[in-house]
This record gives sequence, C-alpha cells and structure tokens, in this order.
Amino acid sequence: MPKISKRGVRLPASPIRKLVPFADGAKKRGVKVYHLNIGQPDLPTPQKALDALKNIDRKTLEYTHSQGLLSLREKFASYYAKCGISVTPEEIMVTTGGSEALLMLFLSCLDPGDEIIMVEPGYANYLSFAESAGVIVKTVRSYIEDGFALPPVEAFEKAITPKTRAILLCNPNNPTGYLYPDEELLSIRDIVKKHDLFLISDEAYREFCYTGVPYKSAMTLEGIEQNVILVDSVSKRYSECGIRIGMIVTHNKEVIECAMKVAQSRLCPPLLGQIVAEASIDGTEEYSKACYDEYKARRDFIIAGLNKIPGVYSPMPEGAFYTLASLPVEDAEDFCRWCLTDFEYEGATVMMAPAAGFYSTPGLGKNEVRIAYVLCIEDLAKALECLEHALKEYNSKK
Amino acid sequence: MPKISKRGVRLPASPIRKLVPFADGAKKRGVKVYHLNIGQPDLPTPQKALDALKNIDRKTLEYTHSQGLLSLREKFASYYAKCGISVTPEEIMVTTGGSEALLMLFLSCLDPGDEIIMVEPGYANYLSFAESAGVIVKTVRSYIEDGFALPPVEAFEKAITPKTRAILLCNPNNPTGYLYPDEELLSIRDIVKKHDLFLISDEAYREFCYTGVPYKSAMTLEGIEQNVILVDSVSKRYSECGIRIGMIVTHNKEVIECAMKVAQSRLCPPLLGQIVAEASIDGTEEYSKACYDEYKARRDFIIAGLNKIPGVYSPMPEGAFYTLASLPVEDAEDFCRWCLTDFEYEGATVMMAPAAGFYSTPGLGKNEVRIAYVLCIEDLAKALECLEHALKEYNSKK
Repeated sequence: MPKISKRGVRLPASPIRKLVPFADGAKKRGVKVYHLNIGQPDLPTPQKALDALKNIDRKTLEYTHSQGLLSLREKFASYYAKCGISVTPEEIMVTTGGSEALLMLFLSCLDPGDEIIMVEPGYANYLSFAESAGVIVKTVRSYIEDGFALPPVEAFEKAITPKTRAILLCNPNNPTGYLYPDEELLSIRDIVKKHDLFLISDEAYREFCYTGVPYKSAMTLEGIEQNVILVDSVSKRYSECGIRIGMIVTHNKEVIECAMKVAQSRLCPPLLGQIVAEASIDGTEEYSKACYDEYKARRDFIIAGLNKIPGVYSPMPEGAFYTLASLPVEDAEDFCRWCLTDFEYEGATVMMAPAAGFYSTPGLGKNEVRIAYVLCIEDLAKALECLEHALKEYNSKK
Repeated sequence: MPKISKRGVRLPASPIRKLVPFADGAKKRGVKVYHLNIGQPDLPTPQKALDALKNIDRKTLEYTHSQGLLSLREKFASYYAKCGISVTPEEIMVTTGGSEALLMLFLSCLDPGDEIIMVEPGYANYLSFAESAGVIVKTVRSYIEDGFALPPVEAFEKAITPKTRAILLCNPNNPTGYLYPDEELLSIRDIVKKHDLFLISDEAYREFCYTGVPYKSAMTLEGIEQNVILVDSVSKRYSECGIRIGMIVTHNKEVIECAMKVAQSRLCPPLLGQIVAEASIDGTEEYSKACYDEYKARRDFIIAGLNKIPGVYSPMPEGAFYTLASLPVEDAEDFCRWCLTDFEYEGATVMMAPAAGFYSTPGLGKNEVRIAYVLCIEDLAKALECLEHALKEYNSKK
C-alpha cells in the first residue's frame, strides 16, 4: 500500500468539523445536538434568491466564465459601490466560497516557504490552506483578557522576516468576533506599506458589526491600493453557505491574472450558486436588517448567559457571530467530545469547536471553545443550559 | 507593489481557456464562434435533474457534510455497482468537479517534490494542479501516428525514480480520445504493483466508449485495490458541467482520511449541484443512450471531415468526445488566435485549443489542436468549413 504524504499527515484536522462523527453518534442515540460548532446559520436564505432558483430556465447547466458570470460581477461591483469601495467587474473574481478564494491566493500569489502573518487565534482553515500550499504561518498573539484586540505593531515588526509576503486579517474576526477599529487598521496599513506586503483581508462578516460605527474595509486604506486583496463571501450575509460563492477583489491586476491561471484550471465556480448569489444582492435590504437585529439580540443573550455560568468567561464580541470563551476545564477538546459521547441533559447536548485548533502555537487555547450563535434564542437558551450542566457533571467526575 | 510569486509565474495558462479574450473580441465584432475548444456539450441536462432543481423546498441553502450528502454517495455507490465496481458510500468523497478531486489528491496524498507520471499529451489542467501542489510531472510520450496508444512499459520503467508516487491515467483520454484496451491497463497494473504506486484514474468519460467492448475501470484491476484512486465527474455524463460535482472513489481509507482534511477545510461541495447530480443518476438510461448515439455520430462525422481537409490528420478516437488533430501549420496557437482575430467565413469562425499546452515537453504538439465535438452535426459541418477556409487563407498569406 503506498505511503501517505508528509503533507497529508501534517494537515490539521478542522476543529470545526473533527468532532462531527461523535455528533453523529449522539444523534444515533436519539440525543438532540445544539450545533454551536459551525457558522451555519439557521436563518432562511432570502426568498428572492430561492425564487431565482425555481425560475432557472436553462436547458443545459453549463460552465461559466472562469472568473464568474459577468452579470454577477457587475452586481458585486454595485454592492461594493454602496459600501464606498470602487471596483470594476474585472477586479472581481468569483470563487467557490471564500475558502477557495484563500486557497487560490495562496497557490498563485505565494511561493512554498513564503511566510504570512496572522493573528492568533485565527480562522482554523487558514492553517490548512497554508499547509496545503506550503506557506509558513507566523502568528502574533491576541489575548482573551484584551478582548482579542490587535497585538501591538511591535509584535508584527518582530514577526516580519525577509520571507514575509502577506498579512492575513479577518475583520470582523472569526473566531473571536473582534472588530478592528480604524486606528488598528491604520497601523496595519503602515506596516504593509513599509514592508510592501500583501494585505489579505477576509471580510465575510462585514455586514455584522454591532458598534453602530460604519464598517471600514481594508479596500479603503489609502496608500496600499495595490497591496490589498479582499476576500469575501455571500455565505453568511444571505445565509446561503451551501451555494459556495465567494470572491477575490483587488485593484492589483497581476494578482487577478495569476489567480486566473488557477481559476481556469478548475474551469469555473458553481453556476447555480452564482445565479442564487446574483438574486440575493438587490432588494434584500429589509432581510439584511432583520438578520442583523437577530444576530445582535443573540449576541447579547449568549454572552450574558455564558458569563453567568461559573468559571466561564467570554468578552463581548463586536462583530461576526462567534465568540471565543474560556471554560473551567483543562482540555476543552476532551470536554467537547465528552459532551457528545457521554452527556445529555433533558435529551439534548451541545456541540462546540475546541479552540486549540484556532491557535497555531501548540498548547494555547486548550481551555477555550469557539461558539457560533447561529441558533434562535430559544435554542441558545437550551444550549446554555446543557453547557452549564455538562460543566458541572464533567468537573464533578474528576 | 508586492512581487508576484515564482509559482504564479510558472503556472501554465490553460490552453482551453487562454484564447477566450480573443473569442470575446470576435463576438464583439459580430462574428459567430464555433466553440470546439472546450468540453462544454450543447446537449441538454436531463429533464429529471432540471425538475429536481425546481422542486428544492429548502428554506436555508446550508453546508452539507464535507464528504458530500450521504444520499448522493449512496446513489453513486449504486451506480458503480451497476458498472461492476463494489464501493461503499464511505469510500466516495464528493468534490467540486473532477478538478477539485485532482487538486485535493495532489494536496493531500503527495508531497512537494514528489513525482507523478502521466502520458503526454495529457489533460492540460493536470499540469496546473501539479504546479499548484509542487508536484513534478514526468511524462511518457504517446504519438499521433500510433493513435496515441499507451507507450510501452519500458518507457514507464525509465521514467520511474525513487520520488515517483503515482501514475495518472485519463481513460478514455482527454485530449486524445484514446481508449486504453485491457492489455494496456494490465501492464499499468503490473508497474503500479511492482513499484507500489498510486494509480489515479480519471474516468470522467467512461460512458463514452465507442468500441462496443465493456468499459474496464481501473477499480476492477486485481491486486492493486489499495493503490487505485478513481476520479470521476457527472459533468459530461449528464451535460451538467456548471454544477461542479465530481468525486474521489477509493478503497484506501488513508487516502479518504487525508483528503477529508482538505475537504473539511473548504467546508463542503456545492449543495445545489449535489441535489441535481443525485437526480441525474437513476431513470436517465434513455437519456444516456441518446447522448451516446449522438456523440458517436458526431465523432464519425468530424473525423471523416477533418481527414478530408488537405494536410489535416486525425486518428479515430474510440472514447470521450475529443480528438487531437495535426494541422498543416507551424504554430497552431498562432493559427487558432488568428482564426479569432483576423478571420471569418460567412460571418463565423472556429475556436480550437492549441495542443502544445497538453504536452509538458516544450516544443511538442506545436502543429496540433484539440477539438471537442460538442456541437450538433450541422454546426460541426460549419466549423469544418471555417477550418478549411481558414487554413487556406492563413497559409496563402505566408
């Protein structure tokens, strides 16, 4: 039997999905699982988008342009114009989710051995994309005690080497929900400019900022127009994660040209998802407002609830729909698994993502979990009850 | 401005798509373009599949399992059973087209610097996936004079080094249409077994074999059950290229486990495509028979037509819907571009894929083109007329 590759062995298992088999086991035993592990919202997709699906009258479901349907890119450009970002359809590449956007950028714009800097804890799948592409991740650490604020500029300066090619920022942040204020973005801008790096800005959660202050996109940072690459996605914005539509947006023509070579090799992003995405953009302002209000209410509810549980602490996230909370356990992964294999409360249990997988430094985040508040408040209340009882029972056994 | 990577520069441009901007230009001038460059069939998607799309009654278009919907994998397993291949749903991973299946395998099962052997000319995008993954492609050459038959075993033996990890075969072949007979597959089996390599078998065109002999899948080769990885796709079979659904099929659990790490990092294959693919498999036997008959008729028509044009030669392909033909020109890429920029015949022109991009050895295939017979016979006739007149005009200018 041929040996598996070293890369295959090194690839990290997704902390968001690695416990899925245990959740399947719980369901098989008849235990209801409250999924807080994955950013899969329960909110409906806009009716307009679902209608567009029913109205497809194509006879052949054919390839699209590798860069994505022009009509969709035009719609995206008009969306960005409303956000104060001026881009042309040629500066937009449609991808198979934000995931492919990132992998594609790593595979086209970076060389094996190149370094990127990201904030730790960070989105776990970035680590997989980097490992896949042979790109080295250097992290600067943010701390739960500071609400996961941007580490000081000096930490970035210290992490920069001649091999550093990019800073990767997720704003608002997944997994922490942290929203980078203007002054932090400006300090990132200065570093990027000074060292002539790419700034890859993952803004999939841009619509979910709870401070009332207008969102500042990396695309609006002056003086680094050729450095910024925006990664975006319709998944969360319109609750249509399954259609797999994301995008790369940049003024840098070379980046688009390079990414196009990878894009052409995989032929095109999904046609049906592109049609649904296109129908989601206009005329859904009311829908978006309702989603926003719902997430804000859920956030207020779950953060208050978490902090009431003895030994649990969560900062107040100002964006996205995640929080990273610390639990009164030594090994959150063991606890999360135990919740699925050995615990139930009134016929239910809770599934969370162990946070260690969001850190690249071994040993960090071991007592933390990522929680996605993607369930209705009634279910969040039950999930919190499960968590409180689970912690009590788990800790009493030791 | 940050410099682009060496990898980005090295990545080959797709010979199938690189001339698209020139085709766009021809269309802008009002010239009709007969697309023989890309395997995008004009045949309709099965009505049953289109109906399934209209009947989707989900309120939220959500992520699926990273390995793909279980119901779809069960349907695939039953399809393979009918083909004499016994696999379980756990041995099937749904991917975003056959393209992602290949990239995913390269990124998970192979290390940078590992070598794979493929037949030259071969599917151009394999070269991009390999370059993306840092995998080295070694080629053994097949010749148009032999109808692109499998090179002798000795050529493979010569290409094998301690770094060789896999043989990648496309059967029936894209771009040549060559169908590997049993004895050639058995000789591949022996090499694979002797050197304990992976055999990655791309069988996207398995339904299109025109010899009357039952198709032999690599999955049925005895003694290398843990070595074979099948790559497949519904794109061509059901004329639904745009839904982006392919798959990895293997008895090797380690391969599935490793690929799952990449699969989880990109979350899931497209939901809507999975629903369409699932509806395409059963009850479409009549549809498949009609497609088969149509492609066979087209093949007979175009190969006869090509060989009637002075200086053009095409072997008779026995599978898929491509042929690789030699033209009486020195530089087929220049000729193909010229057809789009400077030529028209009765308001139309023809687009073909220059074949040099299907060879990895520089200088080979310069006078060859890949032709996909994915248009109706009436259009193929017009495309042949265009080609004949274009060759005359192009060569008279020199």
